[in-house]
Amino acid sequence: MNKKKIINDPVYGFINLYDDIIYELIEHPLFQRLRRIKQLGLTHLVYPGATHTRFQHSLGSLHLMQSAISTIRSKGHEIKDEEAQAAKIAILLHDLGHGPFSHSLESNWVKDYSHEDFSLMMMNMLNDQWNGQLELAMKIYRNQHPKKFLHQLVSSQLDMDRLDYLRRDSFFTGVSEGVIGSDRIIKMLSVHDDQLVIEAKGIHSIEKFLIARWIMYWQVYFHKTVVSAEQLITRILDRAKELMQQGEDLPASGPLKYFLEERYHNDNREDMLKMYSKIDDTDLSVAVKSWSESRDRVLSLLCNNMLWRRLFKIELQKEPLGQERLRAAREEAQSRLGLSRQEVNYFVFTQSITNKAYSSSSDQIQILYKDNKVKDVAEASDMLSLPVLSKIVKKYFLCYPKEYNLNL
Amino acid sequence: MNKKKIINDPVYGFINLYDDIIYELIEHPLFQRLRRIKQLGLTHLVYPGATHTRFQHSLGSLHLMQSAISTIRSKGHEIKDEEAQAAKIAILLHDLGHGPFSHSLESNWVKDYSHEDFSLMMMNMLNDQWNGQLELAMKIYRNQHPKKFLHQLVSSQLDMDRLDYLRRDSFFTGVSEGVIGSDRIIKMLSVHDDQLVIEAKGIHSIEKFLIARWIMYWQVYFHKTVVSAEQLITRILDRAKELMQQGEDLPASGPLKYFLEERYHNDNREDMLKMYSKIDDTDLSVAVKSWSESRDRVLSLLCNNMLWRRLFKIELQKEPLGQERLRAAREEAQSRLGLSRQEVNYFVFTQSITNKAYSSSSDQIQILYKDNKVKDVAEASDMLSLPVLSKIVKKYFLCYPKEYNLNL
Amino acid sequence: MNKKKIINDPVYGFINLYDDIIYELIEHPLFQRLRRIKQLGLTHLVYPGATHTRFQHSLGSLHLMQSAISTIRSKGHEIKDEEAQAAKIAILLHDLGHGPFSHSLESNWVKDYSHEDFSLMMMNMLNDQWNGQLELAMKIYRNQHPKKFLHQLVSSQLDMDRLDYLRRDSFFTGVSEGVIGSDRIIKMLSVHDDQLVIEAKGIHSIEKFLIARWIMYWQVYFHKTVVSAEQLITRILDRAKELMQQGEDLPASGPLKYFLEERYHNDNREDMLKMYSKIDDTDLSVAVKSWSESRDRVLSLLCNNMLWRRLFKIELQKEPLGQERLRAAREEAQSRLGLSRQEVNYFVFTQSITNKAYSSSSDQIQILYKDNKVKDVAEASDMLSLPVLSKIVKKYFLCYPKEYNLNL
Amino acid sequence: MNKKKIINDPVYGFINLYDDIIYELIEHPLFQRLRRIKQLGLTHLVYPGATHTRFQHSLGSLHLMQSAISTIRSKGHEIKDEEAQAAKIAILLHDLGHGPFSHSLESNWVKDYSHEDFSLMMMNMLNDQWNGQLELAMKIYRNQHPKKFLHQLVSSQLDMDRLDYLRRDSFFTGVSEGVIGSDRIIKMLSVHDDQLVIEAKGIHSIEKFLIARWIMYWQVYFHKTVVSAEQLITRILDRAKELMQQGEDLPASGPLKYFLEERYHNDNREDMLKMYSKIDDTDLSVAVKSWSESRDRVLSLLCNNMLWRRLFKIELQKEPLGQERLRAAREEAQSRLGLSRQEVNYFVFTQSITNKAYSSSSDQIQILYKDNKVKDVAEASDMLSLPVLSKIVKKYFLCYPKEYNLNL
Repeated sequence: MNKKKIINDPVYGFINLYDDIIYELIEHPLFQRLRRIKQLGLTHLVYPGATHTRFQHSLGSLHLMQSAISTIRSKGHEIKDEEAQAAKIAILLHDLGHGPFSHSLESNWVKDYSHEDFSLMMMNMLNDQWNGQLELAMKIYRNQHPKKFLHQLVSSQLDMDRLDYLRRDSFFTGVSEGVIGSDRIIKMLSVHDDQLVIEAKGIHSIEKFLIARWIMYWQVYFHKTVVSAEQLITRILDRAKELMQQGEDLPASGPLKYFLEERYHNDNREDMLKMYSKIDDTDLSVAVKSWSESRDRVLSLLCNNMLWRRLFKIELQKEPLGQERLRAAREEAQSRLGLSRQEVNYFVFTQSITNKAYSSSSDQIQILYKDNKVKDVAEASDMLSLPVLSKIVKKYFLCYPKEYNLNL
Repeated sequence: MNKKKIINDPVYGFINLYDDIIYELIEHPLFQRLRRIKQLGLTHLVYPGATHTRFQHSLGSLHLMQSAISTIRSKGHEIKDEEAQAAKIAILLHDLGHGPFSHSLESNWVKDYSHEDFSLMMMNMLNDQWNGQLELAMKIYRNQHPKKFLHQLVSSQLDMDRLDYLRRDSFFTGVSEGVIGSDRIIKMLSVHDDQLVIEAKGIHSIEKFLIARWIMYWQVYFHKTVVSAEQLITRILDRAKELMQQGEDLPASGPLKYFLEERYHNDNREDMLKMYSKIDDTDLSVAVKSWSESRDRVLSLLCNNMLWRRLFKIELQKEPLGQERLRAAREEAQSRLGLSRQEVNYFVFTQSITNKAYSSSSDQIQILYKDNKVKDVAEASDMLSLPVLSKIVKKYFLCYPKEYNLNL
Repeated sequence: MNKKKIINDPVYGFINLYDDIIYELIEHPLFQRLRRIKQLGLTHLVYPGATHTRFQHSLGSLHLMQSAISTIRSKGHEIKDEEAQAAKIAILLHDLGHGPFSHSLESNWVKDYSHEDFSLMMMNMLNDQWNGQLELAMKIYRNQHPKKFLHQLVSSQLDMDRLDYLRRDSFFTGVSEGVIGSDRIIKMLSVHDDQLVIEAKGIHSIEKFLIARWIMYWQVYFHKTVVSAEQLITRILDRAKELMQQGEDLPASGPLKYFLEERYHNDNREDMLKMYSKIDDTDLSVAVKSWSESRDRVLSLLCNNMLWRRLFKIELQKEPLGQERLRAAREEAQSRLGLSRQEVNYFVFTQSITNKAYSSSSDQIQILYKDNKVKDVAEASDMLSLPVLSKIVKKYFLCYPKEYNLNL
Repeated sequence: MNKKKIINDPVYGFINLYDDIIYELIEHPLFQRLRRIKQLGLTHLVYPGATHTRFQHSLGSLHLMQSAISTIRSKGHEIKDEEAQAAKIAILLHDLGHGPFSHSLESNWVKDYSHEDFSLMMMNMLNDQWNGQLELAMKIYRNQHPKKFLHQLVSSQLDMDRLDYLRRDSFFTGVSEGVIGSDRIIKMLSVHDDQLVIEAKGIHSIEKFLIARWIMYWQVYFHKTVVSAEQLITRILDRAKELMQQGEDLPASGPLKYFLEERYHNDNREDMLKMYSKIDDTDLSVAVKSWSESRDRVLSLLCNNMLWRRLFKIELQKEPLGQERLRAAREEAQSRLGLSRQEVNYFVFTQSITNKAYSSSSDQIQILYKDNKVKDVAEASDMLSLPVLSKIVKKYFLCYPKEYNLNL
């Protein structure tokens, strides 16, 4: 195989694949698995169009990486062919380690590993199969390659990951407020002192990008019904684990059972990884359907709520919720649904979410002026000063069950 | 609940829901199930963006129905409120009966029923739950309501179903050749002698619509790699059934097992329907993953081919393939893969597909002129005469396994 | 004429005209004249797509007004049919009074009148021709109708004018940063205490709208090359007037001559208005072409600079420019171009531009909460606090001629 | 100047300029003049968005040429750097010779020259100013360069000119039926035997392109109201010339007068060209405004009809119109408008328009198969056979004045 491949993409039109190894990596089951992991977990329950997957997003990030490399090279900064290929591989595989429903359940599979950890373990596996050809990609991914800006293209506040997911998520949700001019941002990219920078005339695009990201957080990622749905699936998983630990034998696919029973505690990392690489959204979907007929009232109720889209009602506010409010809601639900005091905790609970638009502490977004000076965007922007950008917004919420006719 | 609901849709921007009953039907698990059935089955293996579902398509068709009703009313044709609601319900539910991967596997679940039959059975179920409120919708669906044009909005060569799926499928695949001006077509809709017609100045939009549909068939629906993938999943299902009948106990979810074992033969219709309403894409996805480790070499090979995206190579041509070509390909594969003569039939086989752009025989697309005369579009079009439009194109194909390194 | 008219519009797809009087007003030469006035004056010299006109913008604003009225009515607020029609007429005609190149030259025609004044005078003319049918529209335009929110739809910080021009200008310039979700904003419109308000769940759309407007200012309306081009045409007009007053007879169309000679000082308002309604972009374009051959060196040089697109170089900065810098630039240009000390002022000069994103003083944008309370958006937004939004940004610039080979 | 320039374009996003000479040619007044010539003449009277210019179209064609060259090179066909630059210059300048309102008035300025002739004359002028650097571009333009496919990129049934104007015209008119997948078509371009060809898998894109072009003809270019408007401006020009020849001194800019008086008959080519390069849409617009007050009743009536958008009524049909119909219409108009028998011919007349989708006679569109054979698209297409594609459609029309209240 040595033909240029073209993939149709609704967001960018066409995505070109130039390297054989990239094409082969895409065909690998570890990457094909991403076809079965939705980019936005349960967000499609609110935005029905959002059925796009980590697979598409990874290809999209690759596409942007290709544009970025070509722009940066055209401005006279050297990126060797093997570095270019490695950067492309790194971004292509950066999300390999996501589990079912992406972030919605991230911490629920294996406590001590993030999805980035799993990505790295899987890259390792692939590196072995390809006889070490992924070494440089992994170095860039871990920021161990001397040219730091290559890592920044993969992971920073202005990486190809973010540029793709903001644009793609707004495309598929239909939330036009999140649309960003990724083309223009990439055309404005450059390198200065081994740092990724944006040329000064691109500053408004960056302002827009930061605002768009902010809006996507509150309008999509933290949309209250999305949060409610994520709480529901989390509760389902919690209950299933609890029942499993009590010896209940719930129907589930092999890999799903493995994680519900937390068998990985006694297992070696390699075997754990093998099981991890076998689960995706579909295992959980099938389980929820069958658990809706479980003898356990809590589990079956939770699962039925998912199937009937009877999501928790959710109240979002800036101040923490008083204990009284929580107690009252629990009592009401307890008596209405006929649950025990312990069981009702699956249906009525509080939590919080937090977000800020930009962090000046770690990797800043640097603006490059014609006199070759650079400034942090928070300083350079006429409108978005640092206090604005880095303000932390925290919101508290209370979930409780909707009233519904159980016998409809 | 009596608030106007708004749903974001990437294709149309917003979809408004005006009727409580519509909103309640959407929340029902039978409708929510459509979230787990991809509109285009395995097409996303070729066009990665095509992960949209029957759920989105049904909402989109509802949206177009609402526009169509409002246009037709504005031209002085009476549609009573209960007829409008019924037409909306009919189009909303028209795809309720689709099984896993939509058309890809349509005939594989229960031989004697089409997805339309299942849709009708499910509407019946819902009608019972809603105490007969769906009667009129079902009459329109079955073309038993006196106003025939209402049925034509639901099912004809110019129905809201087609208008939505062409536009939606081209949107999500990124195949711009299929984009149609659904807005303009709907604005040109009218009624004449109880027939749905298009006003004469809309004729070019209809020409474009017929061409776009033709192109979508050959570029997407019958794309050779899509056909190849559909053949693969069909073979997987066939083999699984065969093994089941031989007493093998393959892992599968309850409802999937029910159909693989063809238990419905001895079952009543109601119970069969109950099982049918529990399967969707995810049951099959999970099964393919676990069957990839089956002891049966044929099944595990087929399933691995799916997971590794090693789709059959496929040759498409206008003439039937000679027996010799088939025999040679079988022998080659038999020896290469170490299969028996019977087993190789799962890997090497021929079939055909057929299509025409327009059928003048049944429900024609009628063009309405200012002098109140109507003409079949095939007659009215300067460019697309009947012989062109109704030409049947048949293509034959041969599938056989790609060469690949089994041990990569 | 009583048929519903449909107009194709690249931004919204279709614009429906429902009222005969609206259609007739559009055909009137006063409105047709807007076809010859570019929405963004000379901006197309930087963004070549920006050749759209006040005509399109006025139709677009009408379209949004129609949506807004229908949304507001659907939320239970009364708008009588005659009020609806009047509001539509008011927005349709709000830009009638623009002169050549819209804002670029606004103050140059008749010192004491703004384009709004001219709009009102022209509405008066039309009102006479239509026997008083425009009375109510004019009341709304002048905010003399009791329902204040109708005026706010025509003129406020959230009027249909702004919603259309931001979206349209970003569409035609291709500056995606300015794209706003006008659909969503309009769906969120409501009325509270006779004030136009935005429902709370639309707050992010408003944040985005304010940012988009801000960005459009700095990326398009105040783009430094646009500013430079506007300075050039202003200088051309100034020089032509000066020469006219010195008795020079420059070629120009009748109406253009009228204004260059400032004959309106001795004229009655009606005759002045008649002449005003006869000039548009084209008179000036033709004049610039012929003046490029003028005997006056300053005028011919300025006009040739326009025809060759040799726009002034422009330096933009936050601090005022020192007198020394100006003097030096003048001396350089004087000797290079062989100009007198007085003449060089046409080629080297300083000025400033100023902008803020939002003004809380006059008509605030109010957010309506579910508990029926309202808040100014500057207070309601988590991100965009008042100090940010109402910060006044002032920039100073210096213009001077590019170096170029005069004999190319 | 040696920086890469980027131009925003609403159709393609960005257009990159790589060559200094290209940038300099764009700045030249001969090219800047195209800013004042609308791409679609008077079409904006029907589709208000269609105010785009030959300037934009020329840049767009340049952009597509750049993509095409890069695609063809990537498939292993040699295009030398100087050939690439020359092809780019040739397409950039191909429309230089258009006169006011583009095609609407093409034959009305100088009988014996087409706009292509003028383009060539102007290229010659520029070639002199650039000391012969445009020689190769002109050779390609005139098909005198050995590599014939380069000429085909500039001028053939699949040239960059058509690809751009179809896409651009459908974008600005808002007629989505004309949208073509120019990206895909260009990606499928290749060269075989020094002929531009399309790879076989691009055949549906070509089918779609031919249909889209066909539809654009009937929906836009030959839209009956557009035809009517073009007839009106033609009649205005005819009448003005007639009056000029009778010694009437009509107000007009210098260059416009030159052509109305047909002074070029006695002039040398060079001086004629100089005058030609000074007229554009604006000269005519200004003239129409002032002629609306002419003493000549025919001219003032025609011009007022333009300003009031009182276009001719037009009847379009497949058969020629009988003499009787014409006579009756003339008598009616004569008495209603109080015109002489000769004068009425300006208001009531017949003509015809003709079109075919594809011509197999001259430069065919060739499809390239994997076995390296080529076929004419008319043969290769399953749907669009030659008789369909090359059918000549001729339509006859009758124009006559609308009834209107002259005194409104």
